[in-house]
Amino acid sequence: MGEDLLSSRRIYEGRIVNLRVDSVRLPSGRITEREIVEHRGAVGIVAVDESGEVLLVNQFRAAVARTLLEIPAGTLEDGEEAEACAVRELSEETGYVAERIEELYVFYVSPGFSDERIYLYLATDLTLGSQRVESDEIIEVVKVPLDRALEMIGTGEICDGKSILGLIAARAKLLTS
Amino acid sequence: MGEDLLSSRRIYEGRIVNLRVDSVRLPSGRITEREIVEHRGAVGIVAVDESGEVLLVNQFRAAVARTLLEIPAGTLEDGEEAEACAVRELSEETGYVAERIEELYVFYVSPGFSDERIYLYLATDLTLGSQRVESDEIIEVVKVPLDRALEMIGTGEICDGKSILGLIAARAKLLTS
Repeated sequence: MGEDLLSSRRIYEGRIVNLRVDSVRLPSGRITEREIVEHRGAVGIVAVDESGEVLLVNQFRAAVARTLLEIPAGTLEDGEEAEACAVRELSEETGYVAERIEELYVFYVSPGFSDERIYLYLATDLTLGSQRVESDEIIEVVKVPLDRALEMIGTGEICDGKSILGLIAARAKLLTS
Repeated sequence: MGEDLLSSRRIYEGRIVNLRVDSVRLPSGRITEREIVEHRGAVGIVAVDESGEVLLVNQFRAAVARTLLEIPAGTLEDGEEAEACAVRELSEETGYVAERIEELYVFYVSPGFSDERIYLYLATDLTLGSQRVESDEIIEVVKVPLDRALEMIGTGEICDGKSILGLIAARAKLLTS
């Protein structure tokens, strides 16, 4: 069912993404191009405290030209393990340290054109450290009850895919644990 | 909370994605770059028949160099409405026509670098027409009970984000309707 790679053009090498265009031969013999955005992968963290409140971050997103309310998230550094990245990003973005971290889902984000994979975690047993934010991120931390966050999916106030999936999965996990 | 756009470089204009790099001034005064992948948006369809089976498609994905089992999906055409696109893609990929189509979620896929939005639908009251597949897509249609598809998320056999979210949302909607 695969495709034969004939050649590959590197279009762009960036900080967050690379872009290449592969020329491939399909099983039918036809030759076509595949535009592929390379990404190191990312984590998203649903952090719920002992009173059932979840930590969200409000952040301007240039790609969509608006501020979005999302779960804390960030890109894997070179060679970094996803769980370590989740602990780091949660601490950097919110100041909280999680004693307990569990995987919810690992998934491809948009496999039609990108190799990005997201690792979603549930973080609990939180203690407040100090907020350390990366230099070009302006992030406002918001705490809302998990049930309220789930309502905000219905109203469209939360409209980021990883956040929607993470919040739904976290509720299901917390209900059964 | 926004960023001032200083300049924008068009790096690539493709069939599925465009890439641009914006130079922006942050509220702090610091200047940085934003790599932005432009995408027209896409639909995903959870199509469930009267016996509770869901239509999935097996398809080689060059970006991740493997075959993935996903819900039927496709990219919006110029000026196309999302619901019309969902009906068209379901028919093209599986041959099924849906009498009833309901929105599940609309979400940004990866707003850190892309403006892609996915419109997820639940399609029911299915009737079989004829499969018409786009020329460079080799697609195998698979029908499995919805509960089995949900198990396949747990086993990792389904590991595509829109498919995971769509299947979970479809089950919740069907349980309450």
